[in-house]
Amino acid sequence: MRLEHLGERKAIKIISKITKTDVSDDCAVLPFGKKYFLFTTDMINEETHIPKNSKPHQIGWHVVAINLSDIAAKGGKPLGVSVALGLPENYDAKFLKELSKGMSDCAKKYSTKIVGGDTKENNILTLCGSAVGVVNKKNIMLRKGAKPGDVVCVTGTLGASSAGLHSSNPKKVLMINPRVKEGIALGETNTVTSCMDISDGLASSIYQLSSLNKVGFEIDYEILPVDRSAKNVSRKLRMPLEELCLYSGGDYELLLTVKRLKLKNAINTLEDVGTKLTPVGVVTKNQDNILIKENKKTVLENRGWEHFRVRV
Amino acid sequence: MRLEHLGERKAIKIISKITKTDVSDDCAVLPFGKKYFLFTTDMINEETHIPKNSKPHQIGWHVVAINLSDIAAKGGKPLGVSVALGLPENYDAKFLKELSKGMSDCAKKYSTKIVGGDTKENNILTLCGSAVGVVNKKNIMLRKGAKPGDVVCVTGTLGASSAGLHSSNPKKVLMINPRVKEGIALGETNTVTSCMDISDGLASSIYQLSSLNKVGFEIDYEILPVDRSAKNVSRKLRMPLEELCLYSGGDYELLLTVKRLKLKNAINTLEDVGTKLTPVGVVTKNQDNILIKENKKTVLENRGWEHFRVRV
Repeated sequence: MRLEHLGERKAIKIISKITKTDVSDDCAVLPFGKKYFLFTTDMINEETHIPKNSKPHQIGWHVVAINLSDIAAKGGKPLGVSVALGLPENYDAKFLKELSKGMSDCAKKYSTKIVGGDTKENNILTLCGSAVGVVNKKNIMLRKGAKPGDVVCVTGTLGASSAGLHSSNPKKVLMINPRVKEGIALGETNTVTSCMDISDGLASSIYQLSSLNKVGFEIDYEILPVDRSAKNVSRKLRMPLEELCLYSGGDYELLLTVKRLKLKNAINTLEDVGTKLTPVGVVTKNQDNILIKENKKTVLENRGWEHFRVRV
Repeated sequence: MRLEHLGERKAIKIISKITKTDVSDDCAVLPFGKKYFLFTTDMINEETHIPKNSKPHQIGWHVVAINLSDIAAKGGKPLGVSVALGLPENYDAKFLKELSKGMSDCAKKYSTKIVGGDTKENNILTLCGSAVGVVNKKNIMLRKGAKPGDVVCVTGTLGASSAGLHSSNPKKVLMINPRVKEGIALGETNTVTSCMDISDGLASSIYQLSSLNKVGFEIDYEILPVDRSAKNVSRKLRMPLEELCLYSGGDYELLLTVKRLKLKNAINTLEDVGTKLTPVGVVTKNQDNILIKENKKTVLENRGWEHFRVRV
């Protein structure tokens, strides 16, 4: 079967079965004394991830940011980022300089640095970032752990990246803010039962947590923290707002489940670092994933961004 | 200036200057208590690194092996490898299975495992491996440290990979043996003053160590441990043997400098792990790099494999 019919998630299943890799988390978690080393890698290329009119500085920022986001979702402190660059040979030195500046600016903003890399020729611009980080064993946040009764929360706002894509604003798509200080702060509260970053859309992330934890989610559509830009794009382009904030990827906010009795603690902790944490639903024993909208329950659709899938 | 005129090493200079990355080593060295955490990444693609008739198992092995080689050159113990796969969507599941098996087999052979990865679409097959490892601070081998009077040594044999390329034997090119146990054993002897893996050819590696350490090298051509397959290819194809064992890359043996009084110690240590360590020359104060051949001194040429360079 060809990959375009198989889809990304089945492809990952094939690989992980053969390599015996635990893929329940998007980031490797390696025990090391009282700590875990965190290790993650993410590859992007110009045809699938980078809007046409993007600036090299934005692209460099992005490849670093998406890797830091994986470390952040575990509550980890980044130790360093490396970027392997696959570059068409007709690119010029100016492009390389601005790309490097973007990589460096992002690393610096999140108190880490570029510690290595690789440069190779490639037909199309292909960038592969990797990041390492560290977290105390007792403070790690994993994808596994959500329990019925927990409160579902998201950091920041939803839909900004997708709105950027539809309004030809590559800055909004690429210069995302990985939730590094938020992840560290949340990990230290020990209030979080599961966490992941929303790279493929909220609905898709909910389904991943649901399947992994064998629980369901009830999400209140009306209280989702929708980004103002998403509302604007929805109105101007007459696109359903749901598409932008539920079924499109790229926001890299954190989706987490919090112990009900500790919710205020988690919210206050994020307020202290300047970020809003919004409760958006609850975890249920019943494994259906439900969207509550206009006082009605509907089934949340299991779709979002998936690679290889033939799009219709 | 376009990258094809700039060349890989100048491109790396541009990037490292802007990102303030120490690129003296091919592997990031991150202090962590009494240890260094090692972190490296290497990207390959089907157009520049993978011979046409390669099998997916061989390709999977290769992308893991070249990353382990960077850890090995530092004397490090690998903690895990991740591989990001950029795959054309018309590839099939069988390819993916065999590729994964190759990745897994290589990791297992070197007592580590595949701990993560990423899968994305790409126009051409592009694989980016990353590896993490650990080494005691007192046992690390760096590229910097070679002193005049040190003995220059190489592990194993030279020219096998290049011979494989010229005789259409992709197995020889791809299924290289990273010197993991050799690196760990050598690091523990504290006899090694500098070390790197020979990815772009012996001559190119010598020039990199020479420039970094501000020393010269005198290499005895006649005592180089040339692989038998390189001698055969040289004879059959009437290719100068020097091209195969000095100016072609891909062997991933270790090139190291050893304290003169400790040479026997280093050789015995590698004998104990079943690998030959051959002394092939000396480090000199004079910064010229010399090849001694038929009792004559000639200048070792500064060339080997370099990406982006227009080849003539």
